[in-house]
Amino acid sequence: MRLTQYFTSTLREAPADAEIISHILMVRAGMIKKLAAGIYSYLPMGLRTIKKIENIVRECMNDAGAVELLMPSVQPAEIWQESGRWQQYGKELLRIKDRHDRDFCYGPTHEEVITDIVRSVVKSYKQLPVNMYQIQTKFRDEVRPRFGLMRGREFIMKDAYSFDADDEGANVSYEKMRAAYCRIFERCGLSYKMVEADSGSIGGSYSHEFMVLAQTGEDAVISCDRCDYAANLEKAVALKPAKAPCIPSGDSDTCPKCGGIYEIARGIEVGHIFKLGTKYSEAMNARYLDKNGKQQTIVMGCYGIGVGRIAAACVEQNFDESGICWPVPIAPFEVAVVPLNSNEPDVVEMAENIYSDLIKAGIDAVIDDRNDRAGSKLADADLIGYPIRINVGKNNIKNSLVELVIRSSGEAELYTREDAINRAVELVSQAK
Amino acid sequence: MRLTQYFTSTLREAPADAEIISHILMVRAGMIKKLAAGIYSYLPMGLRTIKKIENIVRECMNDAGAVELLMPSVQPAEIWQESGRWQQYGKELLRIKDRHDRDFCYGPTHEEVITDIVRSVVKSYKQLPVNMYQIQTKFRDEVRPRFGLMRGREFIMKDAYSFDADDEGANVSYEKMRAAYCRIFERCGLSYKMVEADSGSIGGSYSHEFMVLAQTGEDAVISCDRCDYAANLEKAVALKPAKAPCIPSGDSDTCPKCGGIYEIARGIEVGHIFKLGTKYSEAMNARYLDKNGKQQTIVMGCYGIGVGRIAAACVEQNFDESGICWPVPIAPFEVAVVPLNSNEPDVVEMAENIYSDLIKAGIDAVIDDRNDRAGSKLADADLIGYPIRINVGKNNIKNSLVELVIRSSGEAELYTREDAINRAVELVSQAK
Repeated sequence: MRLTQYFTSTLREAPADAEIISHILMVRAGMIKKLAAGIYSYLPMGLRTIKKIENIVRECMNDAGAVELLMPSVQPAEIWQESGRWQQYGKELLRIKDRHDRDFCYGPTHEEVITDIVRSVVKSYKQLPVNMYQIQTKFRDEVRPRFGLMRGREFIMKDAYSFDADDEGANVSYEKMRAAYCRIFERCGLSYKMVEADSGSIGGSYSHEFMVLAQTGEDAVISCDRCDYAANLEKAVALKPAKAPCIPSGDSDTCPKCGGIYEIARGIEVGHIFKLGTKYSEAMNARYLDKNGKQQTIVMGCYGIGVGRIAAACVEQNFDESGICWPVPIAPFEVAVVPLNSNEPDVVEMAENIYSDLIKAGIDAVIDDRNDRAGSKLADADLIGYPIRINVGKNNIKNSLVELVIRSSGEAELYTREDAINRAVELVSQAK
Repeated sequence: MRLTQYFTSTLREAPADAEIISHILMVRAGMIKKLAAGIYSYLPMGLRTIKKIENIVRECMNDAGAVELLMPSVQPAEIWQESGRWQQYGKELLRIKDRHDRDFCYGPTHEEVITDIVRSVVKSYKQLPVNMYQIQTKFRDEVRPRFGLMRGREFIMKDAYSFDADDEGANVSYEKMRAAYCRIFERCGLSYKMVEADSGSIGGSYSHEFMVLAQTGEDAVISCDRCDYAANLEKAVALKPAKAPCIPSGDSDTCPKCGGIYEIARGIEVGHIFKLGTKYSEAMNARYLDKNGKQQTIVMGCYGIGVGRIAAACVEQNFDESGICWPVPIAPFEVAVVPLNSNEPDVVEMAENIYSDLIKAGIDAVIDDRNDRAGSKLADADLIGYPIRINVGKNNIKNSLVELVIRSSGEAELYTREDAINRAVELVSQAK
């Protein structure tokens, strides 16, 4: 991509309402733009990152045997009344009346819709298990939306729903999703922790959250450094010490179970998986005939990932004073080529050649072909956070050299054109 | 893909509310499922077709230099008040109040949002032209939703918006989109016609519609068989004969301009492009400084394609008494392998080998590995409408032969395994 043919809009100033670094940097880098409280447009640069996250999620879900579908965002009240959530759900549920004064809502989750689909199709144990997912826009009418994509009202989510013949099958489905989630966060380049959690308004028998560790995280995460126990604080304090022996008790910070030291860290929830059991299938009459022709209730699980949240959480983990440091797999572009002297034909020619070589090598590259000062181009590149940058300047090309800079470490080395290409290709493939 | 690991749900009976063939067949083939009036889920099989259409649209838009972004579905009333459409738009606009009683709508189009983005970023003629598009879910609260995806309330649309420095530039942008649209409909395998049209509630100076020709079309399309003139009937009768000389006048059906014969055909609108002029940029103050430092108003165009409508219109053009006949580029799967005798190990082995060969050859193949009767599998395959089918039956494999059937023509021939693969690969690549 050429920046002259793209739509970029970097800002020097942080937005007045931005409190956390991911919000500040994603707005300043021109990745997102606020339309109303908690409602953002994904500008072209931001959408590239979102699409890359979506593709990683999609590949990992498909590999785990889940099948993609797409359900409506506008849902009729009737199915929510059937599950009982029309009454239970508070003001976070955005309720809508259509032109005929019928009740609808903008779906914050899709348990009711998917259960309605499955109950109409699945009649026999032979049709189970089923696991279906979608990547879709949802709405939750937060009382105080803030933090950019972190706590928005309209947001993109991947939600999956599993349907099994029995509890044992449901556990297998849950385990597959747990493994898929670990793979997703690893592939996105995130440092994360899986912790025990409460089920909240979704309901069900147990659940785990996936937390990206970052100082700005809204949640506290407890973990023992010796035994396996990890939970969010809410869940941990709700349990008795006997059942969750690694929880801090009194003044002591040693784990009463194993003697290890417990730690409290801050985390950002990016995924949540729930063993739902029969809460929805019972209420909505989703049943099947077993091998003996006897009617049984389907056992469900549900599994959510905040796509926009992954992007924001990643920024919280990867930034410096100049801007974002995207990991390669979800960077808007992998390599940026920056001709530092736009008026020098040699510089422009070398930069164009390198850009063209990178594209041929299958690299997702961008060239900053704008007629701007070097300082302004480099500041933009650092702010947007391309993981690898190749600077082409008039002094170095006298010696047929260009500079390759790694954004996260600041490491810079001089290479010939050919070696710069090879090094960039090597770095990108190592990181994916 | 293996059908045993997929989610299929073919129906023998047409839904009671279905009036047109695409609605009947897409529901019966398990591609879509109604949730409420005019609101459908895209089931896995249907979503595959939708995603293929989206990718064709995306590639053609990118090739034409348009840049993808994603705007919110929920839009604040303020920008609609600025453009004047909050008052003008009727009940088709789904109005929403949030928990703080603030006014929003579920966007049926995005002229206001995109103009708000561009006016905040574009300050100089150097930043023009800009053309941005999104593929996104929209809502139009139709008084009488019907015909499945053809006239739904919630629907997927590609909408693009161009911003130019002057009228001449706007014409260039319009022309690029016109060419891109032709390419999109050709690549989807549709027979279509571009006609002059009215601008309706979107407004602007002129517009063209892209019509898929089908007897069930809601619109009448006038075209002269000798000169170039084509228009929708609404537009044609609104013009004076002198200006549109090919319109039927009196009892004569000859073109008064060229003597050619005019024809009236039925069409389904799948795309609509508008030269907007300065309607929105004037109302919303989207201006820039020209080369002389003088403030000018940006000239706009907007360009829409109904993604779900393309799928439905394609079915209206490609079906027979057994079901859908998808063209290869937007078929849910390109080739289906059907082992006719699920209990014969030789048959199953041959079918599995062919399936695996097709996948290796890069074909989007599916194997019907369900333990069902041959008749039921073939009926499903015809209903869903895979363009190419390879039947593996116990009689033919005695002679090491399998049957390759072309869905649209019914043409069937016997091949060896290797020749069947080659023939399938050849047919798929010819069609794409």
